[in-house]
Amino acid sequence: MTKDEMNMIGFEIVAYSGDARSTLLQLLKEVRQGNFNNVDQLMADADENINLAHKSQTQILAAEAGGDNMDMGFIFVHGQDHLMTTILLRDIITDMVELYRRK
Amino acid sequence: MTKDEMNMIGFEIVAYSGDARSTLLQLLKEVRQGNFNNVDQLMADADENINLAHKSQTQILAAEAGGDNMDMGFIFVHGQDHLMTTILLRDIITDMVELYRRK
Amino acid sequence: MTKDEMNMIGFEIVAYSGDARSTLLQLLKEVRQGNFNNVDQLMADADENINLAHKSQTQILAAEAGGDNMDMGFIFVHGQDHLMTTILLRDIITDMVELYRRK
Repeated sequence: MTKDEMNMIGFEIVAYSGDARSTLLQLLKEVRQGNFNNVDQLMADADENINLAHKSQTQILAAEAGGDNMDMGFIFVHGQDHLMTTILLRDIITDMVELYRRK
Repeated sequence: MTKDEMNMIGFEIVAYSGDARSTLLQLLKEVRQGNFNNVDQLMADADENINLAHKSQTQILAAEAGGDNMDMGFIFVHGQDHLMTTILLRDIITDMVELYRRK
Repeated sequence: MTKDEMNMIGFEIVAYSGDARSTLLQLLKEVRQGNFNNVDQLMADADENINLAHKSQTQILAAEAGGDNMDMGFIFVHGQDHLMTTILLRDIITDMVELYRRK
């Protein structure tokens, strides 16, 4: 896969992951203010975008495992960083919401 | 270091980091349910795996500093992302446990 | 950009991001102990270092978008991982401080 092709996927992942990140940070802002009405919907919206980004990531993993040479540019690496940090935020947000409920 | 050699290290790091991540998320689940009995043991288990992954990472850093050319494939980059996000989870979990204790 | 040039930027980013991370973890330690006196100053210090690291990152993004070929070494990729995980810590620390205030 050429650098340009991988960078296009990188931009795609940054876009999906960016949307998911904004949604999760919006969710934190709302529960901080005592508004728990949108928790499920915002989590679902974030999951949808994370899954789309994750799909692109999985395609690359499979292509490399199949012997394709991956010419990674910076934007692709950046997309990975963005997605993996957003996935961690998703992993811990359930507890942050729960802690706000119990404050 | 060839791409295949680096990808083998990448798989190794993903395995160690994956185990540590599952252990830390299990820990969060238990304290969320009010069970603080296994906190120290689960933290120690996670630290053991993080240290093993970190050792592989440090070898690569030293090899590159020593002039080796590192032909990084995607799985290696993914291993780094996974480890660094799991290390952040480890950095903050002490406070998440503490906040649950004080709820 | 050569691998050596990129690795120099990688070291720079690791240094700035490392300072920011230590500051944020110091902040967590203080609020865990009930000391909220330095929250604003420590956040400002961390932001300053994150912005410096972010500036280097943005230069690379622009150079690659402008057609420069980026020969990424491991230390550069490591610098990205370190910065992106520290930015996530910065994203969530406001809520961790708030949760400690409410205990």
